[in-house]
Amino acid sequence: MSDLARRVAELAAAAKAAARPVALASAAVREAALRGAARAIREDEAAILAANAEDVAAARAKGLAEAMLDRLRLDPARLAAVAGACEEVAALPDPVGEAMESWTRPNGLRITRRRVPIGLVAIIFESRPNVTVDAAALCLKSGNACVLRGGSEAIRTNLALARAFGRGLAGAGLPAAAATLLPFTEREAVPALASLRGVVDIIVPRGGPGLIAAVTEAAKVPVIKHDAGICHVYVHAAADLDQALAITLNAKCQRPSACNAAETVLVDAAVAPAFLPRLAAALAERRTELRACPRALPLAPGSRPATEDDFRTEHLGLVLNAKVVDGLDEAVAHIAAFGSAHSDAILTRDEPAARAFLARVDSACVYWNASTRFTDGGEFGFGAEVGISTERLHARGPMGIRELTTWKFEVVGDGQVRA
Amino acid sequence: MSDLARRVAELAAAAKAAARPVALASAAVREAALRGAARAIREDEAAILAANAEDVAAARAKGLAEAMLDRLRLDPARLAAVAGACEEVAALPDPVGEAMESWTRPNGLRITRRRVPIGLVAIIFESRPNVTVDAAALCLKSGNACVLRGGSEAIRTNLALARAFGRGLAGAGLPAAAATLLPFTEREAVPALASLRGVVDIIVPRGGPGLIAAVTEAAKVPVIKHDAGICHVYVHAAADLDQALAITLNAKCQRPSACNAAETVLVDAAVAPAFLPRLAAALAERRTELRACPRALPLAPGSRPATEDDFRTEHLGLVLNAKVVDGLDEAVAHIAAFGSAHSDAILTRDEPAARAFLARVDSACVYWNASTRFTDGGEFGFGAEVGISTERLHARGPMGIRELTTWKFEVVGDGQVRA
Repeated sequence: MSDLARRVAELAAAAKAAARPVALASAAVREAALRGAARAIREDEAAILAANAEDVAAARAKGLAEAMLDRLRLDPARLAAVAGACEEVAALPDPVGEAMESWTRPNGLRITRRRVPIGLVAIIFESRPNVTVDAAALCLKSGNACVLRGGSEAIRTNLALARAFGRGLAGAGLPAAAATLLPFTEREAVPALASLRGVVDIIVPRGGPGLIAAVTEAAKVPVIKHDAGICHVYVHAAADLDQALAITLNAKCQRPSACNAAETVLVDAAVAPAFLPRLAAALAERRTELRACPRALPLAPGSRPATEDDFRTEHLGLVLNAKVVDGLDEAVAHIAAFGSAHSDAILTRDEPAARAFLARVDSACVYWNASTRFTDGGEFGFGAEVGISTERLHARGPMGIRELTTWKFEVVGDGQVRA
Repeated sequence: MSDLARRVAELAAAAKAAARPVALASAAVREAALRGAARAIREDEAAILAANAEDVAAARAKGLAEAMLDRLRLDPARLAAVAGACEEVAALPDPVGEAMESWTRPNGLRITRRRVPIGLVAIIFESRPNVTVDAAALCLKSGNACVLRGGSEAIRTNLALARAFGRGLAGAGLPAAAATLLPFTEREAVPALASLRGVVDIIVPRGGPGLIAAVTEAAKVPVIKHDAGICHVYVHAAADLDQALAITLNAKCQRPSACNAAETVLVDAAVAPAFLPRLAAALAERRTELRACPRALPLAPGSRPATEDDFRTEHLGLVLNAKVVDGLDEAVAHIAAFGSAHSDAILTRDEPAARAFLARVDSACVYWNASTRFTDGGEFGFGAEVGISTERLHARGPMGIRELTTWKFEVVGDGQVRA
């Protein structure tokens, strides 16, 4: 084991030791810790913004693109939002101890399936420093300790935020190690963390393909990954074309960098001549490139030919693939072959067709007459989200604080023995 | 990739291709397939028993112990029970498509979390051939395809059972590959199967420490392991000692080879002088060895000193450890340090003490005044069980057909777009 791996293991072990006190703390204590963390972040405004200015200067010196610098940058308003988000999580209903179901057996045993924390949650992320506080807050709200590893370019900011968060924990009588930020920028820290079986109970990578691959290759603990979204909008023959146009534009253009943005529109041949010219014009207004299959190309002025690779690509920008299909079967087959089982929509006024699509498309979120952009913990009403899981097990789709819990069975008897 | 690994991958890919037809089949079709499989098993009685006789003869020639030979052996009555179990699974309520919860957002979006199959389930087991049919039946009932790998000593029996099961599938119009038994007895087949990311959606190892370790080391897919149970019975100072004696004897002696059997009894110092002599006498009658801590030793005639290792051992036989503790805190601390978070019981008439134990012991199943032996899918009312998961995520404790499903979110709107 390298020296760095050993230091990662030591910090994770300290965080793990803090998991039981957090799990056993009352909801009121955990809420007080979160409110204290928000206060501490506000108190530390000057120090956090100074650390952030250093991060931004270092990133600029390294030639980071302006869009990336903007994601990294904090200002008083953004920092106030970070503290406010922490208070919003504090105000969520507490999931710990909730009775998920309860029943009595014929022999009189009373069984309750009760929500309990997972233990030590590792979250690895790349992007904006606000994720540091969001992730720690969600873990604490769900009764877990966490060990966090943020992007190296935000390390000074993240350390300053974590210090403030730790003061919030300590102020409520909880160990500051219950929210541990790894102070290492080396890439090696990621596999070191992912291999700590028996210490880390779950690891959640949020980020690009390189990060996801590094975690899944090294993982010796359960992984809930937040991977790419190759999402589809299927304009069925019986679609309301005005509505279909509005939804398709929203799914593609409203925030094209999001994983729930659409990459491909599938259009039934019957409506393609009516729909594709309007779509092409509207996309042109939005400076969005249309990449079209051979049948769509002549119907979509300004489009250029799509390659097969395009249909497998998460564009993360203002590029939309279009393909003409001959009905539901071909649409479902295309989604199965090219999609990432994230979020896919059918737009139609035909209920049987819609029900068939919802049943047959094997994606985390399937939509009828709504934009795929709603795949989001906040939009689903979960209050806040860890992210969008692309796993099939334990957490699938929007992942809120409930998905940061597991359960135990409480069995109450009056002397029952097994015959 | 070795030749064997390639053949495992090919068979798994064929099973995976069968997963969608099974997932999309109606409940009636899957139930018909299970009833057909039971019929086919009865029709093939002669062939299955002949294959089994070969397995038993080969195992005897290899010097397998008589107890193991008995686990391997089928006779007409046991085979009828195998077919009957298949019909019992067929009669369970169908979990596929069940609405787990449903709600409407302020913007009018209607969201339903609906149960769907996982996909391709791999189950690796060592023991009796009836597991082959049980496992295949549970996977089919929950809409999954499966690939099974049984113990090498049962290979002829398992292949004969799998042939019959496949006829049941085919008779209902489902691909026989949806229940694939690996025909390989080589150990290498286990890591080959566990590494098939993107093909195998979940792998469930049921067996001894060697099998569990082989799967978890090699796994590149989510694992739900069924590991050891080091279970405790804690006789609290306020226990009804008659009841405590009956429960302790049941937890240890009723089926000592089960993972939910108790390995250790913790006895409060206040009641140890009254309880331990009675326990020692009752255990002696049941030819059960008592290994006692220094404080318990003089109170338990016939006991011998326990080592620290004893408290960490799943004895799987008629051996019980005893330790005198000074109250709830020490009992909870001992369970945290030596237990396997499987099943632990407190025996007491003191409700606050019981509630504290249920909350503070972080095990899959926590009991108050009942035997740990109830940790079982059938006893919990799940109808049948895949086993007892010792994982924290997705399935914890008794694992029934619901735990062989995941979910999708169906979102129904009337044109909603995200602002």
